[in-house]
Amino acid sequence: MHSSFFCYIVNHMVNYYKDNLDQVFSVLSDPTRRAIIQELSRGEKTVKKLAEPFDMSLPAFSKHMKVLETAGLVSYRKVGRYKHYYLHQEQFNDATKWLNELQSFWENQLTGLEKYLLNNEDDEGGNEK
Amino acid sequence: MHSSFFCYIVNHMVNYYKDNLDQVFSVLSDPTRRAIIQELSRGEKTVKKLAEPFDMSLPAFSKHMKVLETAGLVSYRKVGRYKHYYLHQEQFNDATKWLNELQSFWENQLTGLEKYLLNNEDDEGGNEK
Repeated sequence: MHSSFFCYIVNHMVNYYKDNLDQVFSVLSDPTRRAIIQELSRGEKTVKKLAEPFDMSLPAFSKHMKVLETAGLVSYRKVGRYKHYYLHQEQFNDATKWLNELQSFWENQLTGLEKYLLNNEDDEGGNEK
Repeated sequence: MHSSFFCYIVNHMVNYYKDNLDQVFSVLSDPTRRAIIQELSRGEKTVKKLAEPFDMSLPAFSKHMKVLETAGLVSYRKVGRYKHYYLHQEQFNDATKWLNELQSFWENQLTGLEKYLLNNEDDEGGNEK
């Protein structure tokens, strides 16, 4: 009974919980898109300015911008004829939290192991006396 | 000259710098794989035990395990007839660092903006006197 409730919770989380982790992690799996995101974290920029350092055609670069836009990670505002892109930094919160929680869980486990080993060492020291 | 050197650095980073970010972020874009990783961060487990809470066939589940293994995120040790899987937690360090740096850069910018606004407020207050 307890186990089947656990199964229900896990499948519910997998199927119905809507965070943006799938999309954000998928976007981040490409090095060009990561570089664009880093660049936009420094402030808004036009596509032309953003594309400058990359060794690719503007249409190819625009496809990356479209992926970022569709995922809701960037938007633009029109300034004259130009689109100025900016980052929705808050959209990365869930992904950052997910990875930090994984690391902190691991670190807590290590601390637990260290304590155990240290206590054991003390006990052994005690036995030697 | 300065600009072309910058282009060189960016393209070098994109094309030749080998971290595991592409693979780790790609693996993390799937909710089942994220759930497996979270479960393994609690300690090693057999595939049967890992698959239990999921509403999918064992072959389908094994494909996810294969993706994790190929990406170097999990390994197994044989205990009798069973494979006990464990997590290579350190493989998530680059991804965690990347996202934390993005967030901290953003927070520093916000702090800068707050300071600017506060200073401006003081100036305005001064003018009113």
